[in-house]
Amino acid sequence: MEQERIWTAALVVIGDEILSGRTQDKNVAQLASWLNVQGIRLAEVRVVPDRTEAIVEAVNILRARNDYLFTTGGIGPTHDDITVDAIAAALGVGVEHHPEALAVLERYYATRGGLTEVRARMARVPAGAGLIPNRVSGAPGIHIGNVFIMAGVPHITAGMLDALTGTLEGGRPVVSGTIGCWVAESEVADLLREAEKRHEGVSIGSYPFFREGRTGANFVVRSADADLVAACLADLTRELQAGGRAVFADGI
Amino acid sequence: MEQERIWTAALVVIGDEILSGRTQDKNVAQLASWLNVQGIRLAEVRVVPDRTEAIVEAVNILRARNDYLFTTGGIGPTHDDITVDAIAAALGVGVEHHPEALAVLERYYATRGGLTEVRARMARVPAGAGLIPNRVSGAPGIHIGNVFIMAGVPHITAGMLDALTGTLEGGRPVVSGTIGCWVAESEVADLLREAEKRHEGVSIGSYPFFREGRTGANFVVRSADADLVAACLADLTRELQAGGRAVFADGI
Repeated sequence: MEQERIWTAALVVIGDEILSGRTQDKNVAQLASWLNVQGIRLAEVRVVPDRTEAIVEAVNILRARNDYLFTTGGIGPTHDDITVDAIAAALGVGVEHHPEALAVLERYYATRGGLTEVRARMARVPAGAGLIPNRVSGAPGIHIGNVFIMAGVPHITAGMLDALTGTLEGGRPVVSGTIGCWVAESEVADLLREAEKRHEGVSIGSYPFFREGRTGANFVVRSADADLVAACLADLTRELQAGGRAVFADGI
Repeated sequence: MEQERIWTAALVVIGDEILSGRTQDKNVAQLASWLNVQGIRLAEVRVVPDRTEAIVEAVNILRARNDYLFTTGGIGPTHDDITVDAIAAALGVGVEHHPEALAVLERYYATRGGLTEVRARMARVPAGAGLIPNRVSGAPGIHIGNVFIMAGVPHITAGMLDALTGTLEGGRPVVSGTIGCWVAESEVADLLREAEKRHEGVSIGSYPFFREGRTGANFVVRSADADLVAACLADLTRELQAGGRAVFADGI
């Protein structure tokens, strides 16, 4: 079988609020799910503080070894919003006001007290960048090369991803299927390992849980080939049932 | 003022289930909050896939540049649990069965079908490692040098952190205080920047939100010095109120 090209992305989450434990990140799961549909795999995530050197290091390593790099956070108008300057530094370009972003902000703030100098900060982009539409609030996201700069607030990021849907080149979406069983994963470890070996091109993840005082696990089969996933799930189901166990389609 | 020693930790989250978007990570926020109380700052997080080279790279970079390194995930008994082997590889040591861990598992599984070879995999540790008690399920966590290897399931990790409480050397805990205001952060950006400058040793984070159709923001003041936090919060409150705004203690 021909080796399939795998498209990858990385995410840099920029935010002291995540590292302090104040805010529970939601953008990793949101971006991961969205990327899957685009046929792009989320390969690595880094959460870095609001410090220029930390952002520059993460951005430069990860944009070089992935097809795409996303960032979330730090694009507001306040003193702790340093993402645009840090990414410009990482790319070795200057920072400029984007005329279209200024126009967007001018319209947005026309009924909200007007576009002040502070608010115009949100139109600053690394020189040469384009915009990602923001249908939720005023300030747009930014793309430059393979770097996509997005908001920290999850529902604003959701709108930006929506605007990007279908615009990025990817491979076949990763397909996954889940089955669940009230079993200790240690009882079926060999069975899982062998099933994965028999079905080349799939990966099987085992995710144990304790619920209502009972031990169970969900088994997730992933592949870019939907037929492989279906075949492996059917095989696993048979094997688990052969041990006298009830198996739940779609997991527990 | 004497420069205070800052203690830092990093976290490597090991898990395809996080990168696929299937599972929403909860260990970052949990570890961050726990570290704050120990006087240790979470300096960086990486989420890496279940691949040895990815784990080795992250572990070796981050353990070298932080006082402590934590990992979560991948310490179960199944084929996708490769954390112990990967960390042993990173440290350049072998893997051995820890006698005390074997004893723990033997007791735990005495009434649960017995300790099988597969289950005994959970007693494997990098050579020379010690254990972190697990009060929730059977398999213990592991510590070796400045590396702490913990479970992926958040409430098991919570129990392990509980067992570690007070055992790690740290500095003064970071103190934070929050105030909230129904204001667009862009209106008060200058005020925030100047307040941060006036109070050396604090950092002010600005976290905007949109709720019930209104724009607001919470402002979080952080420092290792509780008096500085209190003084800065009082100052900020005065400044915001001087603009005719209501300020909410503890945030909105």
